[in-house]
Amino acid sequence: MREVKISLVGYGVVGHGVVDVLTRKRAMMKELGLDLKLISVTDHTGTIISEDGIDAQKILGEKTLTNVATSSMKGKEAIDAIASDLVIEVTPTNIVHGQPGLGHMEAALAGGKHVVTSNKGPLVVAYSRLKKLAEDNGVMLKFEATAGGTMPLISLVERTLVGNTIYGIRGIFNGTCNYILTRMAEENIPYTHALSEAQDLGIAEADPSYDVEGVDTAGKVVILANALFDMNIKYSDVDVTGITGVTPEALALAREKGYAIKLIGDVPALTVRPTLVPVGSPIAVGGTLNSAAIYTDLSGTITVSGLGAGSIETASAILSDVVSIYRTKRIDAIF
Amino acid sequence: MREVKISLVGYGVVGHGVVDVLTRKRAMMKELGLDLKLISVTDHTGTIISEDGIDAQKILGEKTLTNVATSSMKGKEAIDAIASDLVIEVTPTNIVHGQPGLGHMEAALAGGKHVVTSNKGPLVVAYSRLKKLAEDNGVMLKFEATAGGTMPLISLVERTLVGNTIYGIRGIFNGTCNYILTRMAEENIPYTHALSEAQDLGIAEADPSYDVEGVDTAGKVVILANALFDMNIKYSDVDVTGITGVTPEALALAREKGYAIKLIGDVPALTVRPTLVPVGSPIAVGGTLNSAAIYTDLSGTITVSGLGAGSIETASAILSDVVSIYRTKRIDAIF
Repeated sequence: MREVKISLVGYGVVGHGVVDVLTRKRAMMKELGLDLKLISVTDHTGTIISEDGIDAQKILGEKTLTNVATSSMKGKEAIDAIASDLVIEVTPTNIVHGQPGLGHMEAALAGGKHVVTSNKGPLVVAYSRLKKLAEDNGVMLKFEATAGGTMPLISLVERTLVGNTIYGIRGIFNGTCNYILTRMAEENIPYTHALSEAQDLGIAEADPSYDVEGVDTAGKVVILANALFDMNIKYSDVDVTGITGVTPEALALAREKGYAIKLIGDVPALTVRPTLVPVGSPIAVGGTLNSAAIYTDLSGTITVSGLGAGSIETASAILSDVVSIYRTKRIDAIF
Repeated sequence: MREVKISLVGYGVVGHGVVDVLTRKRAMMKELGLDLKLISVTDHTGTIISEDGIDAQKILGEKTLTNVATSSMKGKEAIDAIASDLVIEVTPTNIVHGQPGLGHMEAALAGGKHVVTSNKGPLVVAYSRLKKLAEDNGVMLKFEATAGGTMPLISLVERTLVGNTIYGIRGIFNGTCNYILTRMAEENIPYTHALSEAQDLGIAEADPSYDVEGVDTAGKVVILANALFDMNIKYSDVDVTGITGVTPEALALAREKGYAIKLIGDVPALTVRPTLVPVGSPIAVGGTLNSAAIYTDLSGTITVSGLGAGSIETASAILSDVVSIYRTKRIDAIF
């Protein structure tokens, strides 16, 4: 049995999902030979530490750690002080400067700790630097949950499609935009109505600009371009148009011709824009689903779709990354 | 650099694809640290052996090995005699008795050789026995290409969705049936017309019963049930209805209500039958595409689609399996 001491940094919606999933799947992971022990949780109010493993029942009902913290340490200070093997970083994302996640990841990697994250900002801002820091310290940086929600895009390309040359990846990377465009097409309603509906349902934020202006999708394009195509690009290299200008008339006209309009991110084209997609094409999924078509030389086009977000779904992608760290070996390290 | 001596058994359409792909990707695999050396190819006419690696140029133009064989050994005899690390078994499939592939796989596994295959028959007939034989001999049996064509179904479930409980898998597992149903719906033509068209295009066999009666799909249901759900079932446990009774009228009526009719295999229901699927659902792909929805507890429903067959596509799945053998470690074997 391999014991893995895990520190969780960030205790919002995803953080709660991580605690829930690690608890629910503890026994199953032990059967795989992995004892995943959550020894600390840190948020902006402090840290709860327990060397024997955090009792999920004690904290899952708490919105923040204010009432249960056993230490006032926060962020980098907590990461440096706690002897964990692996840090799960799920603080709120900032795509401009990457903080506070960027500092957290740097501290963890520099301290010889693996990092698993769903936080896009630091990867958009500083992917190459973080990657090098991980390599220099002999640890891994895994971020499946940043790019495709529950769609296992990175592992699919790096592992399952190994041997293929990947020509490109195109897809729907934002469930909020997809929901709005789907509802506009179905009900022939203007953008503002569909947006209000999405906000009422909690699918869109009160300030929806991060989603509807294409910022989130462009961040994912940056991550995929850097991680899978070695492109070393930054956010400003992506040509971004959001969905606010899409009209019900355009959707109706497209539909007449057998097309849907979807917000499509494209790597290596580095574009995000409303795009005509044939109805019936595997990437033309509806509702809040995400999708991605992977164009390869040997396997043709492989398409995958799944939920773009969700607390438990994101935590599931994080768990898969954690397991892969302890199951992956480099071929040249066999002997 | 890890040298892997490979013997290929079976030199039909897929076998040619394997030689082609191993040759094209030799350099890329070396970069990964794997020297995949094809040291023998065997078909029903004999065997060509070269310890330094077979020259693909010498054999790719040959339909059989008659003119290039360096030995008269065939099948099991060749497998036993040649000191390879791994056998790729791609002889014609037989879903009733599994031969000759079953004997080939038994010989290879008993001889301590890994087996990678696209041959469904032996797995449908004797999965548990082959699995045990592999374990007893400390080698691996990999068969991604048998179940989903280019769709990475088995690796997706076993590796990427690790931690999830899988409730079920439903999908389109036969490109020939999907092509016929798609054309019937598009053109409002009867089954016999669409079948003729598929035969003219080489998408359906002269005797199409293996595909259109649902036999191929049912074989895949057996493999998925045994490999991913530990069900230990046989072919006769699957309730199978093919597509020969589907009418253009039924397809039109379904379409009116927003549905397509697809031949759907279902695990663990163990059914294969024409099924109503909502148009726009991610599994409702058209043409010769295959698709599969994987229902999970944490990640929700993940859907994947890709080409169901093809020489190079199948060889690509085989290559991915070969690499995974040398990259996978069991967690409990870390220490």
